[in-house]
Amino acid sequence: MGYLRNAWYVGALSREVNEQPLGRVILDESLVFFRAADGSPVAVADRCPHRFVPLSLGKVKHGELECGYHGLRFGRDGICIANPHGNNAIPRGANLRHYPALERYGFIWIWTGDIERADESRMPVFPFLDSPDQFTAVHGYLPVAGNYQLVVDNLLDLSHVEFLHPMFSQAEGVAGHRTEFFQDGDVVVANRWKPNVPLQGLAGHMFWTSPSTRSDARSNMRWSAPGYLNFDLGATEVGATVEEGICLPNAHLVTPETEFKSHYFWSIARNRLLDDEAMSARLHDVVDRIFRTEDGPIIEAQQRSMGLTSDLMSLHPVTLDPDIPAMRARRILARRIEEEHQASGRKDLGRASAVA
Amino acid sequence: MGYLRNAWYVGALSREVNEQPLGRVILDESLVFFRAADGSPVAVADRCPHRFVPLSLGKVKHGELECGYHGLRFGRDGICIANPHGNNAIPRGANLRHYPALERYGFIWIWTGDIERADESRMPVFPFLDSPDQFTAVHGYLPVAGNYQLVVDNLLDLSHVEFLHPMFSQAEGVAGHRTEFFQDGDVVVANRWKPNVPLQGLAGHMFWTSPSTRSDARSNMRWSAPGYLNFDLGATEVGATVEEGICLPNAHLVTPETEFKSHYFWSIARNRLLDDEAMSARLHDVVDRIFRTEDGPIIEAQQRSMGLTSDLMSLHPVTLDPDIPAMRARRILARRIEEEHQASGRKDLGRASAVA
Amino acid sequence: MGYLRNAWYVGALSREVNEQPLGRVILDESLVFFRAADGSPVAVADRCPHRFVPLSLGKVKHGELECGYHGLRFGRDGICIANPHGNNAIPRGANLRHYPALERYGFIWIWTGDIERADESRMPVFPFLDSPDQFTAVHGYLPVAGNYQLVVDNLLDLSHVEFLHPMFSQAEGVAGHRTEFFQDGDVVVANRWKPNVPLQGLAGHMFWTSPSTRSDARSNMRWSAPGYLNFDLGATEVGATVEEGICLPNAHLVTPETEFKSHYFWSIARNRLLDDEAMSARLHDVVDRIFRTEDGPIIEAQQRSMGLTSDLMSLHPVTLDPDIPAMRARRILARRIEEEHQASGRKDLGRASAVA
Repeated sequence: MGYLRNAWYVGALSREVNEQPLGRVILDESLVFFRAADGSPVAVADRCPHRFVPLSLGKVKHGELECGYHGLRFGRDGICIANPHGNNAIPRGANLRHYPALERYGFIWIWTGDIERADESRMPVFPFLDSPDQFTAVHGYLPVAGNYQLVVDNLLDLSHVEFLHPMFSQAEGVAGHRTEFFQDGDVVVANRWKPNVPLQGLAGHMFWTSPSTRSDARSNMRWSAPGYLNFDLGATEVGATVEEGICLPNAHLVTPETEFKSHYFWSIARNRLLDDEAMSARLHDVVDRIFRTEDGPIIEAQQRSMGLTSDLMSLHPVTLDPDIPAMRARRILARRIEEEHQASGRKDLGRASAVA
Repeated sequence: MGYLRNAWYVGALSREVNEQPLGRVILDESLVFFRAADGSPVAVADRCPHRFVPLSLGKVKHGELECGYHGLRFGRDGICIANPHGNNAIPRGANLRHYPALERYGFIWIWTGDIERADESRMPVFPFLDSPDQFTAVHGYLPVAGNYQLVVDNLLDLSHVEFLHPMFSQAEGVAGHRTEFFQDGDVVVANRWKPNVPLQGLAGHMFWTSPSTRSDARSNMRWSAPGYLNFDLGATEVGATVEEGICLPNAHLVTPETEFKSHYFWSIARNRLLDDEAMSARLHDVVDRIFRTEDGPIIEAQQRSMGLTSDLMSLHPVTLDPDIPAMRARRILARRIEEEHQASGRKDLGRASAVA
Repeated sequence: MGYLRNAWYVGALSREVNEQPLGRVILDESLVFFRAADGSPVAVADRCPHRFVPLSLGKVKHGELECGYHGLRFGRDGICIANPHGNNAIPRGANLRHYPALERYGFIWIWTGDIERADESRMPVFPFLDSPDQFTAVHGYLPVAGNYQLVVDNLLDLSHVEFLHPMFSQAEGVAGHRTEFFQDGDVVVANRWKPNVPLQGLAGHMFWTSPSTRSDARSNMRWSAPGYLNFDLGATEVGATVEEGICLPNAHLVTPETEFKSHYFWSIARNRLLDDEAMSARLHDVVDRIFRTEDGPIIEAQQRSMGLTSDLMSLHPVTLDPDIPAMRARRILARRIEEEHQASGRKDLGRASAVA
């Protein structure tokens, strides 16, 4: 089916791109990330045009990327700017495909489509990752050996929590929830509202301080294409307003690596204990451990079990009620990809913008 | 060439199937084994029809198998019996292929062909694994990365013992044996009779107690399709009857995993030291070590060396006298598979009995 | 493109072939090396014609190779000379392809082409590996997961030293060199001459003893087909003759394993401290470490980055001045392979000489 190319994808955590170049495969292409002299992120093709060695094995010098084999040097636009050999002439065609890149919300984002269409207004918006007075956030990354839509399915159908995450399974079982699914344009929403339930989940277990033993809990997921999820997680005293309560808003950002592999980036913010670094470390470790030991392995087993396809629907799965949001998201994404193909009149839109 | 499908195959040791479900690939199909509430063994397809996650990653609850991702629950016939979501309706088609299974001789057996033809009378018979007053047996399992017929070849041609198993190589070399091969209907027999030889082998090294230093030894192998081997191993005082002597009868049961991988199950019984648990442990370890470090590696090297085929004969091997029994077994098996194809008028008989 | 078959290739270090047989894949064929009773090296196909088990898993007995599975025994010409089974008749066709082999310069060499054309005069000549009064040499081996021409490229273009080998990077950078490339018949020469430079490299760092801090240094590489490199490395007092100075002549011998893997053999001699075994050990470790941690990994990354081709030129690389010698070598080798194909009228010349 291909990928949606005219979109921003997270390529790396901000903290992953520092003194050393970082190589990563995104939408089947090998990229290298580094920082220009002013610290701004750069993403270019990870293959030197001279001997095809990955530039991620090279060095960053004064914001330029030097090949580790023979020393060709490239600038922030992927243009070769130094050849240490012979008469030092820059060889023709010694340039790298360049991907528009920007840094926001603690992530490095890249645009994989037509360079002329790269447009910051098409970035998803996560105010809680940009409001340090109100929220503190931790960030994480997990590679997953499964198609990215399987990761999206997992996030859009939280009915799995009861079965996959014993830490969060509830005494009342899945029956205690009010769930609500709807589609708003190309946005899919899956809300789970649990009024007046025993304390539970991250809010109830890690941040609750009042003597109450019951809360109004919510876990509301909101998807937009290609793989952005805005997760409103929280709990309040029974009957209180959301603003008064514990808010743990999450961003989940799923980037295809190949048809069968994904990059799963996440960030979880909190409106409590903003300066508590030990809590930040603990929260990172709890969330990371759940993904790494429970969601990741089951998605990878699912992909292996699906064999040589990444298209779940082609296998005619049995469908349950909580699958509706993910199925809508799949349909929207398929339409958006098809529209992109139609608009471009070509199958591989992305490569059209490669430096010639 | 395909597999003989209307047959009982060992899928697991009895002791492998307990509280947790056990996943295993057999005849190219993914199965999961568990126990019903009454303890009887169950084998069904290891893939949830909802999201295709292996059910072997789930849990057994009250003799039912619960998917570890979203909690669909299946009974002993592979029928979905609980859906915890929405209105709890059982979705149409949410059933698993079911394989007739039974427990005998310390193994779990499954029938891979037409369900209507599953017939206990077609089980092989190993009286020494069912006579606790006369025999104590130990059981073992080894996965082998080679076609199952290569494992059968190994067992039907014990002339390799002298070269592959230094522990059992004889002072007199291979020349001291009387060997006898014959075919009895679809049964192939390869007998090795070693009258009046120095003490040797498991009987001579581990169980001999008399002051004699010579014995009449025998190692008689009997094959039937698809991969059942009944191995009469023993030693007596020179000239004495078999019944008076040490009897170490073995069962070797080889099950195809895929064209290039096998499950090798074995059991060795003894008519000496029936209650000696230390001897049981030692005997298990000796036999397991020989298979694991000597037979297994050479069969796996043979398969790698054969490249992308599993059909030894297609490579036009040089043939020696001791190859005759294995070549007959291969011919019988090929005929039986061909007869099965003819009878069914279809290539893949097994799938015909899958739950629709 | 295939391989040049009528040539001597290094198959092993002399010290690798001792009591145990050694299996190795060369030019896509599985070979086993062992020593005949008189110590001379033997190379035959590493696959028993009986059950196709690798003979390298067997044993050498009295200079004969015995299969580890059923004991067929083979002599130095690959002829089966003993069958321990049945009537002991040697089965027809139970012979192994035999490769002419000889031992020279601390290596075992094999001839992969027409047996009738095997001719010692076509061996490359390395006098410094055969002059123990003047030189002491150490030898090494590294398997490389990349096409052998990529290894040759690496050696014929030492402009990479400045970037890949920080230990040897020079204060003056690549600009301080005089380089000279020329072709002499089918020999390619790439000379680097560095007059009056600060002490540097192995000669300057490990063997220099005079109080001078500058030297005339040289690193002159000479290639001939298929993958022989004679590397004249050394340093003298400024203005002195080569004979007076430190000479560290090297042989680099690259043998294809498969299209995507190589065997890289090397030897480095010295005309200093001939009897200093600690220096021999240290020199081996320094050179081995550089190849293992710097050249090997970058060549392997290059091969991975090239994907499913081994033909660098088919990817239209950007070319720099120092690439000229390697490009000439590639052209010469391609012509020689083409000539060999033309002469034989067949694509696969080597197999024509196999024992029938």
